Amino acid sequence: MTHRTALPPIATLRERIARGELSHEALVAQALAGARSPAAQHVFTQLYADAALAAARHADAALQAGVQLAPLAGLPVSIKDLFDVAGETTLAGSVACRDEPPAAADAPCVARLRRQGAAIVGKTNMTEFAFSGVGINPHHGTPRNPADVQVARIPGGSSSGAAVSVALGLAVVGLGSDTGGSIRIPAALNGLVGFKPTQARVPRTGAFELSRTLDTVCAMARCVDDCLVADAAIADMPLSVRRRPVAGLRLAVPRTLMFDGIEPAVAGAFERAVQRLSQAGALIEEIAFAELAEIATLNAPGGFSSAEAFAVHRERLATDRAAFDPRVAARIALGEPVSAADYIRLHDRRAGWIARAEGRLEGFDALLCPTVPIVAPPIAELAASDEAFFKANGLLLRNTFAINYLDGCAFSLPCHAPGELPVGLMLASVRGDDARLAAAALAVECALAQPHS
Amino acid sequence: MTHRTALPPIATLRERIARGELSHEALVAQALAGARSPAAQHVFTQLYADAALAAARHADAALQAGVQLAPLAGLPVSIKDLFDVAGETTLAGSVACRDEPPAAADAPCVARLRRQGAAIVGKTNMTEFAFSGVGINPHHGTPRNPADVQVARIPGGSSSGAAVSVALGLAVVGLGSDTGGSIRIPAALNGLVGFKPTQARVPRTGAFELSRTLDTVCAMARCVDDCLVADAAIADMPLSVRRRPVAGLRLAVPRTLMFDGIEPAVAGAFERAVQRLSQAGALIEEIAFAELAEIATLNAPGGFSSAEAFAVHRERLATDRAAFDPRVAARIALGEPVSAADYIRLHDRRAGWIARAEGRLEGFDALLCPTVPIVAPPIAELAASDEAFFKANGLLLRNTFAINYLDGCAFSLPCHAPGELPVGLMLASVRGDDARLAAAALAVECALAQPHS
Repeated sequence: MTHRTALPPIATLRERIARGELSHEALVAQALAGARSPAAQHVFTQLYADAALAAARHADAALQAGVQLAPLAGLPVSIKDLFDVAGETTLAGSVACRDEPPAAADAPCVARLRRQGAAIVGKTNMTEFAFSGVGINPHHGTPRNPADVQVARIPGGSSSGAAVSVALGLAVVGLGSDTGGSIRIPAALNGLVGFKPTQARVPRTGAFELSRTLDTVCAMARCVDDCLVADAAIADMPLSVRRRPVAGLRLAVPRTLMFDGIEPAVAGAFERAVQRLSQAGALIEEIAFAELAEIATLNAPGGFSSAEAFAVHRERLATDRAAFDPRVAARIALGEPVSAADYIRLHDRRAGWIARAEGRLEGFDALLCPTVPIVAPPIAELAASDEAFFKANGLLLRNTFAINYLDGCAFSLPCHAPGELPVGLMLASVRGDDARLAAAALAVECALAQPHS
Repeated sequence: MTHRTALPPIATLRERIARGELSHEALVAQALAGARSPAAQHVFTQLYADAALAAARHADAALQAGVQLAPLAGLPVSIKDLFDVAGETTLAGSVACRDEPPAAADAPCVARLRRQGAAIVGKTNMTEFAFSGVGINPHHGTPRNPADVQVARIPGGSSSGAAVSVALGLAVVGLGSDTGGSIRIPAALNGLVGFKPTQARVPRTGAFELSRTLDTVCAMARCVDDCLVADAAIADMPLSVRRRPVAGLRLAVPRTLMFDGIEPAVAGAFERAVQRLSQAGALIEEIAFAELAEIATLNAPGGFSSAEAFAVHRERLATDRAAFDPRVAARIALGEPVSAADYIRLHDRRAGWIARAEGRLEGFDALLCPTVPIVAPPIAELAASDEAFFKANGLLLRNTFAINYLDGCAFSLPCHAPGELPVGLMLASVRGDDARLAAAALAVECALAQPHS
């Protein structure tokens, strides 16, 4: 049996399991069957059927025995191909790393999921080395975005398989990473919620590095609550979220950058969301945010990701460039001429920028903008043309990257109408403001779900 | 009146002031007079006579009024020339920065001293840009080490004036910085206690950067207790030190590196200290520590300091190299050819090394070795010859730098006999172990001060 849609929220699943209407084992068996179905082609790079079923049965037995289960115990969860699993070589969507030694231990975030008893169903496909927002992978194929049954559209990336695994109901949580938008972009394009916490909250050990400065380990899920369940499992400290109404939320809509090149479908969905939130009492204010226009220059050429990825791949790129996705290789190679002094100054320029940008957001609960200014383009168009690929990639990453550059935190929430291609609404805030942002995201999600008055 | 020796410990001074035997104002006036005496030539780059006297009078008045004073209130303190003071250009021992804009605010550690009411008597001379352990400064002259009245010997550096200001009794605390030993080396050569805490404990904002990776803001003083008073004033969180006896202290003496090229005077003083501690019940064990021999290669060429200093000075070095101490310019220039990838790998190699080196120290309360393997050489010898200068600089920095590389914490305690040239004993431990190390340092200091049985 194939799932076509995301699973119910975790709390609902747990209630149904507690009432005996469903077992962890049946849920995980369904997920595994779905993972092998045609709709899930290219979603997983590897399945852990036996271990996932064992975790599910263990949860069923524990429940029978009256044990209080951890929130993710026995539930299907997917992990992006870039996380270390003990005894396996970590490939990060590549073939270039095939001959590397196996990981000695699980990445801490994977170990934390296991310790909760989560049923890890498999590793999910991704952009090679997490280095684009499109989600096309020439080695392992590209998971198809389930939102459009007519046209094969990109899933978004780099956590492409993670998003589709959740969108198809094969996992309640897709563990991934977000360096420039790699959780939020595929969440937006697949109609899911993606949460990029403040980088320092979640350990990055054992996550194949793209940019040590910007990489954030995080997850996407069906709803904000489920993202918070995942966050509590993987972060060093769980958030203490105080629920609040949407009325009185102060939201800043930046006039700069975030709306450039926006497609009508995205502009329309965003406008409807703004109206809905205003009607519910949110205080929405357009603000000047000139700093956003500086990022492209400050982070040029290649920025942190190219310099840092080049440090990781230098030898491999010199001896085995043919094994790389040429589009990824080209972006990594931008890091070669960067000097240590240039790189150190990238950090300084960013620190100065963050201080100025944080000032713009003072007095607001969150920044509000479209997660991405376009809907998912067809795979064929971007696969065929480097120009189309890099143009789309730039648009996909632009808004989300601003929040990585800010060292901030952000949610992407779905804001499209049923039947439309998915559109994401980004709520973002500054470093360390995760708990307040999560409360805002819960309130916004709830307001957007209300029937119109 | 000129002081020839360090002031009594802070606690003693405070008791004498409380008993009315001494006033803060008299103490600070003495310090200022001493700072203008011939013995203190080249010690200060700037005096704050009026502000220091005002702080002293304020403390006297507060005491009269029955106010509980902060530990450093009204006491003379010196700050190294590299700290921002609002309204002044920060020179860091150079002349190359003369035309830079003034600092907008006090460095946080300076502000914290001021908030305690400390009488900041002046800014102290230093190696230009803190880039050597010798303490020779061709622009401002070199403070003479007061330990030898016959031969003009180096004070050690880079916090050269800081050490001499305390050794001459012109300050109870010399605020400085330690990137490779810049607090501990001059403390050792001047018979003082120097404490380099774990880097992350003290804010570095407003301290002119040599190496952002290794710079630690810290202080030297007459004794361990006074160093802890300074640490409590400047650190984000004060240490909670639980006093303990020396008996049962487990101290590791490394067979590798730390004793290479040691002078007989240092070897003799160290051996006597080891005997004294053993007799007092410390458990002293020689250990293999092969990792220490790797540092020179791992951090070559120039390492963090050259790469990071070059990022700071690139334009200045290109346009105004003649304004630099040529020995400093040569070391900064080593950073020019370093690539971003090389630099990122320096960080990775260090992280791997730290993990291995921390393993060597498991089960020990501290590492024990000479702070520097030589006594202070004559200024004239090192001023005359680049070869002699760089050889001495290498020896001066070698042992202390290992602890910066470890991201650890360390004390240097005097261990020479009266009449001998000063020799420092280094007690060091791993990152974050500051409170336990401080307890060990207090116990060791006490044992070394006991008359022989």
